[in-house]
Amino acid sequence: MSASTNRQWILASRPTAMVGPEHFTLRQAAVPEPAAGEVLVRQHVISVDPANRAWMMPMPTYKAPVNPGDVMHGFALGEVLRSNDPGFKPGDLVEGMMGWQEYAAMPARELTRRNPAYSHEMLLSLLGITGLTAYYGLLDVGTPKAGETVVVSAAAGAVGSIVGQIARIKGCRVVGTAGGADKCQWLKQELGFDEALDYRSGDMRKALAQACPKGIDVYFDNTGGDVLQAALLSMRVKGRIVCCGAVSQYNAGQPAPGPVGVPALLVTKRLRMEGFIVMDFFATRDKAEAELHQWYREGKIKSPVEVVKGFENTPAAMIRLFQGDHRGKLLVDVR
Amino acid sequence: MSASTNRQWILASRPTAMVGPEHFTLRQAAVPEPAAGEVLVRQHVISVDPANRAWMMPMPTYKAPVNPGDVMHGFALGEVLRSNDPGFKPGDLVEGMMGWQEYAAMPARELTRRNPAYSHEMLLSLLGITGLTAYYGLLDVGTPKAGETVVVSAAAGAVGSIVGQIARIKGCRVVGTAGGADKCQWLKQELGFDEALDYRSGDMRKALAQACPKGIDVYFDNTGGDVLQAALLSMRVKGRIVCCGAVSQYNAGQPAPGPVGVPALLVTKRLRMEGFIVMDFFATRDKAEAELHQWYREGKIKSPVEVVKGFENTPAAMIRLFQGDHRGKLLVDVR
Repeated sequence: MSASTNRQWILASRPTAMVGPEHFTLRQAAVPEPAAGEVLVRQHVISVDPANRAWMMPMPTYKAPVNPGDVMHGFALGEVLRSNDPGFKPGDLVEGMMGWQEYAAMPARELTRRNPAYSHEMLLSLLGITGLTAYYGLLDVGTPKAGETVVVSAAAGAVGSIVGQIARIKGCRVVGTAGGADKCQWLKQELGFDEALDYRSGDMRKALAQACPKGIDVYFDNTGGDVLQAALLSMRVKGRIVCCGAVSQYNAGQPAPGPVGVPALLVTKRLRMEGFIVMDFFATRDKAEAELHQWYREGKIKSPVEVVKGFENTPAAMIRLFQGDHRGKLLVDVR
Repeated sequence: MSASTNRQWILASRPTAMVGPEHFTLRQAAVPEPAAGEVLVRQHVISVDPANRAWMMPMPTYKAPVNPGDVMHGFALGEVLRSNDPGFKPGDLVEGMMGWQEYAAMPARELTRRNPAYSHEMLLSLLGITGLTAYYGLLDVGTPKAGETVVVSAAAGAVGSIVGQIARIKGCRVVGTAGGADKCQWLKQELGFDEALDYRSGDMRKALAQACPKGIDVYFDNTGGDVLQAALLSMRVKGRIVCCGAVSQYNAGQPAPGPVGVPALLVTKRLRMEGFIVMDFFATRDKAEAELHQWYREGKIKSPVEVVKGFENTPAAMIRLFQGDHRGKLLVDVR
């Protein structure tokens, strides 16, 4: 493509149930001119995340929704081409909410400089928002202690696969839930989970209760829905439920009721159920990244990543998140 | 009655919906003999609480359920008649889970000595489990800051009426929900609530949103159900929901689903929803009681109590809790 063309994925219409390719339109725009205080970025790799789907809903989440006609919102890593801000210079590697497009003119304050010594894949998985979400959510919100039982849903996904490995490092017994026997085997053999349960293969309440004979101390919830319901019923007294996402709900047409047992079980078992957004913890981001990288260097943690090539495949990659056939972090290389 | 007769209220059958007088039978038993390590107590005042109803359900709560044929479980204050334990002597004032009966032979470790300088009413309301539940639940679980908005449901009830007053002492804006215009007026005029909403008079979501234009920082939930649902939708970012009880649910035939927005709203608004049991905080009970009494002496807090006379009226008093016509703490004087 020419350097004067900026391909963009536009939200064509708001899905009311399962997201599909029909909800996006490819548009050719001009490469934008950065205004005063702005930085022009050539995107390299786009992160596809279940949150993309949440942002397509009409209600605000922790940020305003994407509206039809807008460039689809998305997080990405890229290289500074031109800068009208003293904080950035051409060649800098930066990340931010740059949207599904090849070039973005971004206010400098919305960009974060990244260390080019690491690979793009690492920067957007273990050492990026994904790894930090797992790190802070598990350690700061879930507060697991050695010997406790940690359950994580969507355990083969980007965040879940890191959560389980950190819980193992901290001396916990770790049980993951995932879709399909292959992913369950991978969790145990490749990532060291103590147990992995296929949520498609029957009664999740019974399976979780059997896999956690002492009950669950920390449940890291990426899904909501049936797994949350099952986990709630198996929580131990003083257990913690970390609310990270609700991937089972994003494509539901209607907002679902919450699980049975809220609030009564929270009282009788003295449970804490707490949501978080990783950005709230960024004051200590450098330290967390250093610890994650240390574990990686020591071979204690793996960073599973799958890279899709081509900007044109971005919507399809995001839709795959909800088909459940990927493992670890899913990225789109748009260079 | 003679000192050799011990009247007892027995759970005749387990209610499957609204509790009524038909679920209890009055029995005459012998006054028990305290075994080794036990203490014989003559009960003075029985505390009736929504938890009584929860204990009648077949599922364990934070303790085992009452079974049909058992003396109904209940908390009470009484006087030691005989003691087979060096820790207690005749004349001591004690409290514990002594059940709905006139005399109880209790293991000494299950009794707590109380200070006879205070009235029985004070010991079972502001300076007892009720006041401590409000104190720890609001301050330790809800962690309100001056200037924040605190909402409490069942605000005219035993715990709710204390919660609202403590929140006022801490400099919060306080909104209560209660059943009926009379109770709402009483909350504002007598207890200093900033606003009180009648949950019977229309759309609670709209009413709460209007009464809390900046949103809710702390919601102290005594009811579950519709008020919890409405409050959840009006929570501010980083808000706290204190799960104390679910009085709207105890007489429901079926366990209800949780509110819409669990877990998705917990994530996007970074909410914490946490249950507690007052006994978990008893290590600092003396200090908390001293502070509550200090506020009382200074005229900063009232301890509304209604006393029903006569052991025979205990079931009727408990049933009244769910008819919603009492204010503050409801006690039965069984002397």
